Amino acid sequence: MIRTTPIEFASRFLFASALLTVAAPGQEEAPVSEATESCIFCHENLHPGIVAEWRNSRHAQITVARALEADESERRVSASEVPEQLKEVAIGCAECHTLNSASHPDSVAHGDEVIHPVVTPADCAVCHPVEVGEYAQNLMAHAYANLVDNPLYADLQDQINGVAEWSEGSLAHRSPHARAADDSCLSCHGTKVEVLGRETRDTGLGEMDFPVLSGWPNQGVGRINPDGTLGACTACHTRHGFSIAMARKPYTCSQCHKGPDVPAFKVYEVSKHGNLYKSLGDDWDFDAVPWQPGEHFSAPTCAACHISALATPAGDVVVRRTHRMNDRLEQRLFGLPYAHPHPLSPSTHGIRNAAGLALPTELTGEPVADAVIGAEEQAERRARMRSICSTCHAKSWIDGHFEQLDRTVVATNESTRTATAILQDAWARGLATGPATGGSPFDETLERMWVEHWLFYANSTRFAAAMMGADYGVFANGRFWLAKNLRDMATLTELQDEDR
Amino acid sequence: MIRTTPIEFASRFLFASALLTVAAPGQEEAPVSEATESCIFCHENLHPGIVAEWRNSRHAQITVARALEADESERRVSASEVPEQLKEVAIGCAECHTLNSASHPDSVAHGDEVIHPVVTPADCAVCHPVEVGEYAQNLMAHAYANLVDNPLYADLQDQINGVAEWSEGSLAHRSPHARAADDSCLSCHGTKVEVLGRETRDTGLGEMDFPVLSGWPNQGVGRINPDGTLGACTACHTRHGFSIAMARKPYTCSQCHKGPDVPAFKVYEVSKHGNLYKSLGDDWDFDAVPWQPGEHFSAPTCAACHISALATPAGDVVVRRTHRMNDRLEQRLFGLPYAHPHPLSPSTHGIRNAAGLALPTELTGEPVADAVIGAEEQAERRARMRSICSTCHAKSWIDGHFEQLDRTVVATNESTRTATAILQDAWARGLATGPATGGSPFDETLERMWVEHWLFYANSTRFAAAMMGADYGVFANGRFWLAKNLRDMATLTELQDEDR
Amino acid sequence: MIRTTPIEFASRFLFASALLTVAAPGQEEAPVSEATESCIFCHENLHPGIVAEWRNSRHAQITVARALEADESERRVSASEVPEQLKEVAIGCAECHTLNSASHPDSVAHGDEVIHPVVTPADCAVCHPVEVGEYAQNLMAHAYANLVDNPLYADLQDQINGVAEWSEGSLAHRSPHARAADDSCLSCHGTKVEVLGRETRDTGLGEMDFPVLSGWPNQGVGRINPDGTLGACTACHTRHGFSIAMARKPYTCSQCHKGPDVPAFKVYEVSKHGNLYKSLGDDWDFDAVPWQPGEHFSAPTCAACHISALATPAGDVVVRRTHRMNDRLEQRLFGLPYAHPHPLSPSTHGIRNAAGLALPTELTGEPVADAVIGAEEQAERRARMRSICSTCHAKSWIDGHFEQLDRTVVATNESTRTATAILQDAWARGLATGPATGGSPFDETLERMWVEHWLFYANSTRFAAAMMGADYGVFANGRFWLAKNLRDMATLTELQDEDR
Repeated sequence: MIRTTPIEFASRFLFASALLTVAAPGQEEAPVSEATESCIFCHENLHPGIVAEWRNSRHAQITVARALEADESERRVSASEVPEQLKEVAIGCAECHTLNSASHPDSVAHGDEVIHPVVTPADCAVCHPVEVGEYAQNLMAHAYANLVDNPLYADLQDQINGVAEWSEGSLAHRSPHARAADDSCLSCHGTKVEVLGRETRDTGLGEMDFPVLSGWPNQGVGRINPDGTLGACTACHTRHGFSIAMARKPYTCSQCHKGPDVPAFKVYEVSKHGNLYKSLGDDWDFDAVPWQPGEHFSAPTCAACHISALATPAGDVVVRRTHRMNDRLEQRLFGLPYAHPHPLSPSTHGIRNAAGLALPTELTGEPVADAVIGAEEQAERRARMRSICSTCHAKSWIDGHFEQLDRTVVATNESTRTATAILQDAWARGLATGPATGGSPFDETLERMWVEHWLFYANSTRFAAAMMGADYGVFANGRFWLAKNLRDMATLTELQDEDR
Repeated sequence: MIRTTPIEFASRFLFASALLTVAAPGQEEAPVSEATESCIFCHENLHPGIVAEWRNSRHAQITVARALEADESERRVSASEVPEQLKEVAIGCAECHTLNSASHPDSVAHGDEVIHPVVTPADCAVCHPVEVGEYAQNLMAHAYANLVDNPLYADLQDQINGVAEWSEGSLAHRSPHARAADDSCLSCHGTKVEVLGRETRDTGLGEMDFPVLSGWPNQGVGRINPDGTLGACTACHTRHGFSIAMARKPYTCSQCHKGPDVPAFKVYEVSKHGNLYKSLGDDWDFDAVPWQPGEHFSAPTCAACHISALATPAGDVVVRRTHRMNDRLEQRLFGLPYAHPHPLSPSTHGIRNAAGLALPTELTGEPVADAVIGAEEQAERRARMRSICSTCHAKSWIDGHFEQLDRTVVATNESTRTATAILQDAWARGLATGPATGGSPFDETLERMWVEHWLFYANSTRFAAAMMGADYGVFANGRFWLAKNLRDMATLTELQDEDR
Repeated sequence: MIRTTPIEFASRFLFASALLTVAAPGQEEAPVSEATESCIFCHENLHPGIVAEWRNSRHAQITVARALEADESERRVSASEVPEQLKEVAIGCAECHTLNSASHPDSVAHGDEVIHPVVTPADCAVCHPVEVGEYAQNLMAHAYANLVDNPLYADLQDQINGVAEWSEGSLAHRSPHARAADDSCLSCHGTKVEVLGRETRDTGLGEMDFPVLSGWPNQGVGRINPDGTLGACTACHTRHGFSIAMARKPYTCSQCHKGPDVPAFKVYEVSKHGNLYKSLGDDWDFDAVPWQPGEHFSAPTCAACHISALATPAGDVVVRRTHRMNDRLEQRLFGLPYAHPHPLSPSTHGIRNAAGLALPTELTGEPVADAVIGAEEQAERRARMRSICSTCHAKSWIDGHFEQLDRTVVATNESTRTATAILQDAWARGLATGPATGGSPFDETLERMWVEHWLFYANSTRFAAAMMGADYGVFANGRFWLAKNLRDMATLTELQDEDR
């Protein structure tokens, strides 16, 4: 551990101060506010990494006033007007961490300012209101409650995170530590960040107050912030560079979309699109707005198909930008027993099927009609996606692709129906204890096999069809495992049955 | 979805037309044929991505006449003479999509031309006859029939892609949808693309005819094309850039060679070679022909060892280019129960072992002598590979490496022999229903475990030895799983036996 | 295979010789010794790859004398003085391969020199004594004996690498081939390289003698070298470029730290740090010494946290370089049943717990107090790591992170305790045969499930917490599998019990 004398400390300040006047050429054209200068004065040496990231960022290099001069199609700021004090300065530390401070319970006096450590969508919305508004309609913004307040998912989470004890020859379930999910499910879904109190620390620059936060650190997509807002823009727009290029690269999405439950990135990696990206992407332009297929890139990343504003080189809009990620997706392929039309509302924990279960489909697969989007909305969303495909592909190609996808959705739903039938039969025969007789549907071996069926295998197979990553449709958690798992479930019930 | 007015449409044409005369500097030195100009006139705005890819390609930038001027060792065109109309123009849309149109059943009138959507090896062969000829001798070209017309593999495919039903307490196998394999096995192996008919569409430029194709889209290595040819050059030479650099990067091979059945790319990734590529490859020259170890790259990619023409900086040939991928491989390490000498013919579905099974070895591992290459051919192929190794490694290094590989082939074959003995014993004892009593060898739990044994674990262990990616020789589907699977197979038969 | 006539051979020499005088601009400023020139004269055409790698290396471009002129903080040579003959020349073939030749049993006369093929840490220590000294205190240097001489691990290795036979309805264990571990466990742990004898080969340049080596080739971290030294610097500092940039990139570590037993690289890949590296790393400076967060890179790679010398842009030391990799790690998270404080000595095979087992914890998890570091040393190591975190993160962030990690260590240890209880119960009830009744604890199905529990799942969950790669804490070998495995172990014992 490094120990620093007061004199060393002072010399760092002098050095840090010197840095401010020696900006890299071509950078930091935007004037830095006095408040931000005073942040940097200390923090550049304390936390050089984040300050350097910011210095290289667009936030540090262009004022909002100048950003607003751009053509609408090229604009990254969706506000038409922003508060006066933000207009003519770089968007630096103080600009974000002191904004709306009255509504931030984590605000504390810090030097001459009142700052809040947790910058929230409400702060970002001052310049980016359209994006924040769309994101609030995005399933991701509701990822916390959609997990924690759905009784079925709450049970699944309890079964996954809990640590059973072995007691007199059988397993005794024990619920997990109250914060166990923070680096498990909630790492991606988002934690509940609350101000638990204040603490005073001796910082070397004297005593200072800091808020004590629960669920911190966290950058999950549905984080509940101290100010009550939902989500962390930094989940994808990594602090403190907030680089659009980074958000458009597939590694950002892969942070949460790589596991067996949602192998989108893995499927992309073995697709032709992923191959093009990995082989040729170093020469693409990931910064341009709008993003032009052909001109700026020659194969889509996740963002190109699901989020970005795309235009032809002639300037025609292909699709407009959206932060409601399912705007171009008519079906939800993962996370639930059956693929089904996307839910109407991004808040899904209140959905109940005919059997009273918190699912958007029956256990036999039929969608809960009034909870999901209708055929017309589905058609519009598919049309949006098709218009992206057509920047490189002819109609018969696209038709064939979606025909295959639809066929695969039917087949994987059928497979899950068979797995469900085996499970229900076992419940009926007393080989496992299901909800009807007071048991969890997620704790026994056979039940876990059922979960793997839809959460891993059906899911992978559909992603593979949707994104043309064949491995994941067959041997890598695909059809090979669907077929095997049905057989293994049947074999287990046979062994259990004969044992009775 | 984007709707376009006629006026917008017209303005796109003007724009597209303008683009033709504003080529990027240093590019498009080759004159574009009138026919291709008229393709681009519409398609540049309709499908800007693929046109841009082509503009950046060598096909767009150099005429065949000029390509033929290069030294033989540097030449990429293997024809000594090409048709007059192809000589002095860029190889553009029309050059390929109108070639040999009489032999393409998918040919249709389109504007002033007769075009076929499915460009086939017969078209590529006009300029690249040696490569197409070699590829026809490549196992990959025969990947469709080698799977579909081999009765054993047809059964395995049926068991994997089919969706069983749960009926009165047992699983009832149901064969898959006729096209289910298209985005499963055949995604890599290749589909059968046939012209099912024609359809007339209102395209916005008036009504036009298009062929209706089965098994489309597909770029599998053994695709059966409408003209009867085998394979899709675009599987590896991604349209419409056809970049040699991309084909040489490992991501191209990884599209099909990444899953547990053939983890070549994954093994490469944890090898020293893969580490060198990922760490330093950005500075290598992936375009040079011939490719010189040391001068152009410092560790092999898949292509370097298996395909590319290599030479020393002094200009000596190390190996000549080959599109028969096993020219440098004496043994087949994957896809079959036992590692064995490569088959004599690339068409393998007719092979029968002594027991009448469509396998190149007996169930106990001995190769079917008249179906596989002999010791002399094996020695020649290994010598070719060794000459590549020796561009960086000394003889004792190479000797030691192949000694290890040979030892591992023996050990993994032994392990598969044990797994097979357990299965045969179970068949004999009635614990599973094998072919002798009319059952599939691939549908029951124990049989599936046997498949995993050789298709995943023995296989991974051998790849790990062949390419020095140790993880895959132990804990990542390697020896740990071979040992575990034998024990688990034995445990299952014990449980089943005691239940009777 | 390439056959070369004597004349061709001679012409290669002329060419190779010419190359020596045509160095690339900006490179090879250091004069090449006569001995190395004579090596290159033949080997540049025989093995062009490695010579080119060396030509691009720092070893070829700067003399030790010049390297010693640098400021101490920027120096890469830790010797204060080196032998006269090494001072003013490039560090080329002869400089390393003839050094200390008396102590190398693999030394042979070769041309005018006596060379040894296996360069060892003793050779590297002539210029880099501090690094070699630290590495000798590193667990990795002892990886061979820590595996092979630990009776428990020797048994596990035997069970993994052995190939059982199926004999009269049961599995008969057969120990593996004496060299089977060479491309399995010992590929990473390191082989024992011994001189078995000499052989004379006709090399085309006349007959020459070469040593015959066991366990060769190998670059495992704990390789036992012919001179008795431990380790291969080339495991991470890949020959013959020895690039610091490459060693700092995560692919180097991933060669051994990617499998399910130690998924460090996989966890990194889905972490924010990994995302930053993959998205933005192309613009970072991987060569600078010392390495400055912010100035040279904006997110850590493996090396940044575990090895490299870090400094602030103001020049303050954050941490000094270390080649004892656990200097910044207070707990060992993988490879053993329970997470526990790091061992006091890097040689661990002599450790015995209260039950006499070669483990640093009891089977119930308590650490063997006199074998592991104490609380004070633990605190110092954590403080070192925290000082690295703080180059980008505030105190409350770091506090929260380590709180989560500590909680996860407790929970995963508890889970392993339950798995162990199930196993011990099964041993007691005769469902499996444990050490108390003369059995291996690693050969039966239930025992293997227990091994997976701690070696794969508990382990992954901890890595995910330590490096914020959430997937691996849940669905990718994380808590989902911990919970499932406990249930599956219980189910198996139920089935076995009822069968009796």
